[in-house]
Amino acid sequence: MAQQKKMVEEITPMEEDFARWYTDVVKKAELMDYSSIKGCMIFEPYGYAIWENMQAILDKRFKELGHQNVYMPLLIPESLLEKEKEHVAGFAPEVAWVTQGGNDKLEERLCIRPTSETLFCEHYKKVIHSWRDLPKLYNQWCSVVRWEKTTRPFLRTSEFLWQEGHTMHATAEEAKAETRQMLQVYADFYRDVLAIPPVIGQKTESEKFAGAEETYTIEAMMHNGVALQGGTSHYFGDGFAKSFDITFTDKNNQLQHPFQTSWGVSTRMIGGIIMTHGDNSGLALPPAIAPIQVVIVPVAQHKPGVLEKANELFEQLKAAGLRVKVDDSEQSPGWKFAQYEMQGVPLRLEIGPKDIEKNQCVLVRRPDRNKAFTPLDNLVDSVKAELQMVHDILYNNAKDNLESKIYAAHNHAEFLDIAQNKPGFIKAMWCGDPACEEQLKNETGGVKSRCIPFEEEHLSDTCVCCGKPAKHMLYWGRQY
Amino acid sequence: MAQQKKMVEEITPMEEDFARWYTDVVKKAELMDYSSIKGCMIFEPYGYAIWENMQAILDKRFKELGHQNVYMPLLIPESLLEKEKEHVAGFAPEVAWVTQGGNDKLEERLCIRPTSETLFCEHYKKVIHSWRDLPKLYNQWCSVVRWEKTTRPFLRTSEFLWQEGHTMHATAEEAKAETRQMLQVYADFYRDVLAIPPVIGQKTESEKFAGAEETYTIEAMMHNGVALQGGTSHYFGDGFAKSFDITFTDKNNQLQHPFQTSWGVSTRMIGGIIMTHGDNSGLALPPAIAPIQVVIVPVAQHKPGVLEKANELFEQLKAAGLRVKVDDSEQSPGWKFAQYEMQGVPLRLEIGPKDIEKNQCVLVRRPDRNKAFTPLDNLVDSVKAELQMVHDILYNNAKDNLESKIYAAHNHAEFLDIAQNKPGFIKAMWCGDPACEEQLKNETGGVKSRCIPFEEEHLSDTCVCCGKPAKHMLYWGRQY
Repeated sequence: MAQQKKMVEEITPMEEDFARWYTDVVKKAELMDYSSIKGCMIFEPYGYAIWENMQAILDKRFKELGHQNVYMPLLIPESLLEKEKEHVAGFAPEVAWVTQGGNDKLEERLCIRPTSETLFCEHYKKVIHSWRDLPKLYNQWCSVVRWEKTTRPFLRTSEFLWQEGHTMHATAEEAKAETRQMLQVYADFYRDVLAIPPVIGQKTESEKFAGAEETYTIEAMMHNGVALQGGTSHYFGDGFAKSFDITFTDKNNQLQHPFQTSWGVSTRMIGGIIMTHGDNSGLALPPAIAPIQVVIVPVAQHKPGVLEKANELFEQLKAAGLRVKVDDSEQSPGWKFAQYEMQGVPLRLEIGPKDIEKNQCVLVRRPDRNKAFTPLDNLVDSVKAELQMVHDILYNNAKDNLESKIYAAHNHAEFLDIAQNKPGFIKAMWCGDPACEEQLKNETGGVKSRCIPFEEEHLSDTCVCCGKPAKHMLYWGRQY
Repeated sequence: MAQQKKMVEEITPMEEDFARWYTDVVKKAELMDYSSIKGCMIFEPYGYAIWENMQAILDKRFKELGHQNVYMPLLIPESLLEKEKEHVAGFAPEVAWVTQGGNDKLEERLCIRPTSETLFCEHYKKVIHSWRDLPKLYNQWCSVVRWEKTTRPFLRTSEFLWQEGHTMHATAEEAKAETRQMLQVYADFYRDVLAIPPVIGQKTESEKFAGAEETYTIEAMMHNGVALQGGTSHYFGDGFAKSFDITFTDKNNQLQHPFQTSWGVSTRMIGGIIMTHGDNSGLALPPAIAPIQVVIVPVAQHKPGVLEKANELFEQLKAAGLRVKVDDSEQSPGWKFAQYEMQGVPLRLEIGPKDIEKNQCVLVRRPDRNKAFTPLDNLVDSVKAELQMVHDILYNNAKDNLESKIYAAHNHAEFLDIAQNKPGFIKAMWCGDPACEEQLKNETGGVKSRCIPFEEEHLSDTCVCCGKPAKHMLYWGRQY
């Protein structure tokens, strides 16, 4: 029990210091380690397994929708990055440059991809000729590098892992539909897999992706009232296609430029899970992506029959496709309880001599610590039901947190007051002028427009900043 | 039919120009495209899908053996790369250097990982303290960069995709057993999945990996008599552990250095498949890694019931877990036959009105073009049997090719004669002196020692080069 206490105490309470709570959790739960390069992190097995589970679910969904995986080079020549003017302006200040190969100085600098639109466009120019070649629905899983000054594990790192979808379509309508479809795939994934209720909508002109005509976004609300941009989907029109001279012959034998999208989510989703579901005991993982969904802890494991029974239940649950682990190490049950709570394992199964006598076990849910004596008959069904319950509890808690942190501001003074005193999203009307976004950001020390939600409300007739007629309702907030 | 002919004619016959045959196949089968950076290639969907299938099978096997996936940074500080002297000497001449991040010149150069021993060691130093922390069995899937002067798609590229396993053990025996075990995993994979018979053995001192004590290798024999090093497994002893000051407390409370291995296979296996199984009609893929295992070609598809039947069979085969495609495009059946032969699809299923009447279809195997009228009852079993047959045919052909290209040399003159006139492996005795390897390589313009096979034969008593007493039988050959 000494060890148990020690372990739990090592996590700084989030009310005391949220940033330290976060880094305590990522380190103690063995999700990551720091590398010797500032801002580049090491994904340890437990953290990487979460990413693998996310990948598997998303990859399947992408493929069901007709997307194909490819792999483009890691490096982009400077002249290629420069082909689309807005794009290069957005990324050039934050890329890593390769200037030497072996012993030779390179004739042209190469940057490590910060994103791969330019590489995809160069390839698409070669392989798209006719309407028969469209749509092209490509995706790649890779790492990208953006030379960040301030970094935080998972949330903002100089190198991160992601997927980037890049598609080309014969018409603007098709490309717009793809942009919206992939945003919806992400929204479903957040809700059904990560148990995070997303706010979805469109970015304003000043917040959209470098080179995009329209950017759509998933915004999630963290425990501390700070928003996390959790995924984006971009519509490019034919802007890149024109810059890269990509053309195809349409059904009427006319030469046209195709219309383009890109969309991505990254390992920052792991940070989102931690700050949405975690608590002062550590991590809490949604069952769909938990590396261990059920941990079996034998009680009085030296007694005859206990380990045998634990292993029998392990085989039963494993055969049902569940990710399960027996911990039969010499640590005390109390230590194990704390350890797997800290690592966010959704469900604990305790089994001891008395349980075996009664043909039952104890199932303990991570989020609410609910203990249920459960018959061993139909165990698989019971476990699956409890896992679904864990998901629902996590989702509902997150939804309550989100809803409790949305504040409507009806005028300038109210906006500033909320920004100052109530961490969370601010709903407020806006005239459409980027100058008002800039002013509010400066006045509040960093509250920025998050998105124009798909379902806008009418809060008042005028912009909360300048008082001119309002065009949209925006969500605002501080961001990671 | 005009299109069919055109397509087949576009592949240069391998007897005419093997290198052009190879690049024709990789391009026409849509496996890859060239990027604008010399030596960096684009994996197109069909080529990448082969890699994904390889990954899935290997990853499952690694995990069954207790390995865990991690992800280490892409970049290595120069000072870290330099910690192990032999290692840096081997790799420094061929790495890409990042010297600038954003607008700032970096204080220390960072290289893009050519391999990640140094990164793993730096992490292991932090997480290994006690014998309880051992073994560490880590693997990562990633891309690496080696600045190659001469490149060839899949076989030698400046960036390539691979997996690199890095393990740490309490004893030398355990680490040696791991090194051998992973070589055996690769050998099984070559034989059972890629249908390639491997020659396995140990590299000589001059051919082993930079920093390793022992290197084991998979060597495969290509159509043209050139060898391909298809995978390696290294035993490092405690050399890196000492350089990186990695220690643990053993069961007797003594401070020890752990013992290390690494092992990897890469996308060059795709090149190996092409040059082992391909022919003048194009690619031939082993069923286990083929993106499409069965292509269904409807004949007279405009006739009533044909497409319906084709789609019904598609659903039936798909439900059985097979990777199957119906091509109901407007191209002629003849064009489709040639197209999927060229893309190496293992099995073609033809179905037309007459077949439907007779409740049968035609199954055509890619390697030998064997046509079998097959009842539609028990179709899944029949298809699986034919796919197994395709694997066996590919394997046996490859085995025949390998065996027909192994030549025994009993003396110096014979060695030089074979090296000059008979492309393939040369078996010959060797005294153990690197000087003899060097001499034979120079005399033959590039025939190098491939490995000391696990099962050596006694061909003569003396070294084929210097005439001194022989220590080993070696395989020799030209290499990709």
